[in-house]
Amino acid sequence: MFAKILIANRGEIALRIIRACKEMGIATVAVFSKADEDSLHVSLADESICIGPAPVTDSYLNISAILSAAVLTGAEAIHPGYGLLSENPKFARLCVQCGLTFIGPNWEIIKKMGDKDQARSTMAAAGVPIVPGSDIIDDPEEAQKKADEIGYPLLVKARSGGGGKGIRLVEKSEDFINEFQLARQEAQNAFNDDGVYLEKFLTHVKHIEIQLLCDHFNHVVALGERECSIQRKNQKLLEESPSPSLTPELRESMMAVSRKAALSIGYENAGTIEFLMDAQSHYYFMEMNTRLQVEHPITEMVTGVDIVKWQIRIAAGLPLTFGQEDVHIQGHAIECRINAENPLLDFRPNCGTINFLHVPGGPWVRFDTLLYQGYTIPPYYDSMVGKLIVHSKTRELTIRKMKAALCELVIEGIDHTSQIQLDILSHPLFVKGDYYTDFMEKELDKPLSE
Amino acid sequence: MFAKILIANRGEIALRIIRACKEMGIATVAVFSKADEDSLHVSLADESICIGPAPVTDSYLNISAILSAAVLTGAEAIHPGYGLLSENPKFARLCVQCGLTFIGPNWEIIKKMGDKDQARSTMAAAGVPIVPGSDIIDDPEEAQKKADEIGYPLLVKARSGGGGKGIRLVEKSEDFINEFQLARQEAQNAFNDDGVYLEKFLTHVKHIEIQLLCDHFNHVVALGERECSIQRKNQKLLEESPSPSLTPELRESMMAVSRKAALSIGYENAGTIEFLMDAQSHYYFMEMNTRLQVEHPITEMVTGVDIVKWQIRIAAGLPLTFGQEDVHIQGHAIECRINAENPLLDFRPNCGTINFLHVPGGPWVRFDTLLYQGYTIPPYYDSMVGKLIVHSKTRELTIRKMKAALCELVIEGIDHTSQIQLDILSHPLFVKGDYYTDFMEKELDKPLSE
Repeated sequence: MFAKILIANRGEIALRIIRACKEMGIATVAVFSKADEDSLHVSLADESICIGPAPVTDSYLNISAILSAAVLTGAEAIHPGYGLLSENPKFARLCVQCGLTFIGPNWEIIKKMGDKDQARSTMAAAGVPIVPGSDIIDDPEEAQKKADEIGYPLLVKARSGGGGKGIRLVEKSEDFINEFQLARQEAQNAFNDDGVYLEKFLTHVKHIEIQLLCDHFNHVVALGERECSIQRKNQKLLEESPSPSLTPELRESMMAVSRKAALSIGYENAGTIEFLMDAQSHYYFMEMNTRLQVEHPITEMVTGVDIVKWQIRIAAGLPLTFGQEDVHIQGHAIECRINAENPLLDFRPNCGTINFLHVPGGPWVRFDTLLYQGYTIPPYYDSMVGKLIVHSKTRELTIRKMKAALCELVIEGIDHTSQIQLDILSHPLFVKGDYYTDFMEKELDKPLSE
Repeated sequence: MFAKILIANRGEIALRIIRACKEMGIATVAVFSKADEDSLHVSLADESICIGPAPVTDSYLNISAILSAAVLTGAEAIHPGYGLLSENPKFARLCVQCGLTFIGPNWEIIKKMGDKDQARSTMAAAGVPIVPGSDIIDDPEEAQKKADEIGYPLLVKARSGGGGKGIRLVEKSEDFINEFQLARQEAQNAFNDDGVYLEKFLTHVKHIEIQLLCDHFNHVVALGERECSIQRKNQKLLEESPSPSLTPELRESMMAVSRKAALSIGYENAGTIEFLMDAQSHYYFMEMNTRLQVEHPITEMVTGVDIVKWQIRIAAGLPLTFGQEDVHIQGHAIECRINAENPLLDFRPNCGTINFLHVPGGPWVRFDTLLYQGYTIPPYYDSMVGKLIVHSKTRELTIRKMKAALCELVIEGIDHTSQIQLDILSHPLFVKGDYYTDFMEKELDKPLSE
């Protein structure tokens, strides 16, 4: 086992990793920016090193500063957490080149899954259902034929597109040729590459993801699913496990497909395959996250598996000591992401000093946070300041427990999101489990901003 | 179900009960003394009523003030917590006479179990092993014969004794007659009652207790055991479940005996039978606690059963929805009682203002506390300020997790006990599970006070 690990992250996830290391008897090195001198992760780690000024590009994304810190302190491995450098193949590769273990999959897998087209074709080859679509297509007549096959609405997407650019929505067959030509022209003008492909446009979908753990000995376990359809502008706000929309058969099918895919690509360490699922329970590959996810705690609660400890053990070359048959989903868990944002002002982030903090308590209530009373939130980083996680026997009891816990949470000095999460938990469609990724936009954005 | 419950207690246990009520949709009434105006239980309850000045006799033991508060606020039931009025049969009876449900067993059972002799004979009649001894005995020759039968060392105990008075330890047969006569004389002088009885003196014993839940329909479940042998002057400092000293057969036996006893006396609600167990695994009834216990959370962690919610449900007349066959002990849990006491100064209690508070976090870590940053601990009450509870797969992992959590706990402004709990957790005898109720005295009191 490693004697010392450097944590290339900040905030609650750095604390989460430090705690796992402490229990495992592994020394920890925190890295921090000048703006994070007073952060909890700096206090809790055994050692800490300042790696640069406040902006992330100068510190938490500063690869050479982080690698130097690891070498200087004699760390044997680096845990990247989530976000920041966690899915940067160059960083993962450089770790290895510096003789350090990167706690995550191989850099080549990270790279492959980070490329949308490659990920899609790799998963298709591994037998994972992908959103129906076409390869790159030039001939308008051929495209029309293919589009009619796929069905409408559909998207014409530029191969080189990104950030929402180079995508056109086609509502019906008559409009296709015109939109197809416009998309190609736009793509040519914007990216100097007129290659486009077609993809079915899915509406009324759920975001469901399968958590995997894979060791270096071809053992892959799926730790059930998480439903993350409560999103605002693609940012998850509340997650639950299990999903209220999966039958046991569907769950088995999604887990089996995911395990098979992970095996076939030789995946190692923790990873998550994200799916879109339509109202008819057809599911399609969306993307694979080759790292720990923010919402991993709900899976920990319902499976009893400590995902961060397993990431470290697997990276150290240890085999999984349990198999798929040992994974039992017990009860129900919900996580609310507490963000320093004001829902009444279009979720505008805010920062400030925490004048008073009261953390909810009692059995099966967990609050993973970077906050402490007296802490001043710096303006440079992600607005998430904590994750409230509760676990109970049934979904109904878990909703009740989360409501009680949210009501108990007091964070004075900033605006935050707990009220909107209370609204979500009380909404009849949420209570029924009948909600989709457009839930926030359709059901909750308007009344609150009025 | 009750619409409103009054909590006749303070501190962490009041919070614990309020949280259970909130999840169940039950309104709560807190009572508080003038010294507790700024307490968390007052802030968290839906309503609160001041019941008198700081000293407990004027407030938390003031039965008429508490009953008036319940009647005034329209509470339907009273939860007494632990300590204070929780085992006061008069209070339990008066609740019923005022038309209120007392959340606990019938007052007659409380009375019977509160009387040492009656409890002993009741349990003996119910088939529970009791410490070998005699009835009241007057004739010296007969006493000598009985004493030789019981074996040495033994105790000669005054029927009317109490608080350690009227007890003589006899080491060997030759000394018996002399000590017997002295005990009778002392008892006569001290209590005007020379009735004495004999009891085997148990050394090298463990404190092991069985948690029971009993509904009004003759269902009794035993939720495993807790080992509470880490004590100082009869005050528990650290508890664990399961006990490292019970074989599955012994556990089954103790649970079966306890369930049978509870059934035979018609026990209702939560209760605990405490046993002494010697190094040969013979166990003997010590006493029955007819209330919720401080250390109930470790049982909650390993069984998944919310004991406080079940107390309320049972009191409302609901039947248990699970049977003994559904109780499965999962993993291991430890609790450390964090007391505002200085172990270096003979555990002298201290109070003060909490200048900084950092609560340990992460998966399967629970801290039930009355503390918040800025809170001033009043000098009138129990010195326990929090209970740190952790849960993991094995005893070894649980010890590691507790150590990491204790190291993370920061309470500035008072002295507290976390360091001595770290010492206990690192002690080779504790690690082996080879410890008895004299552990603190023999192993830890001296080095620390030097």
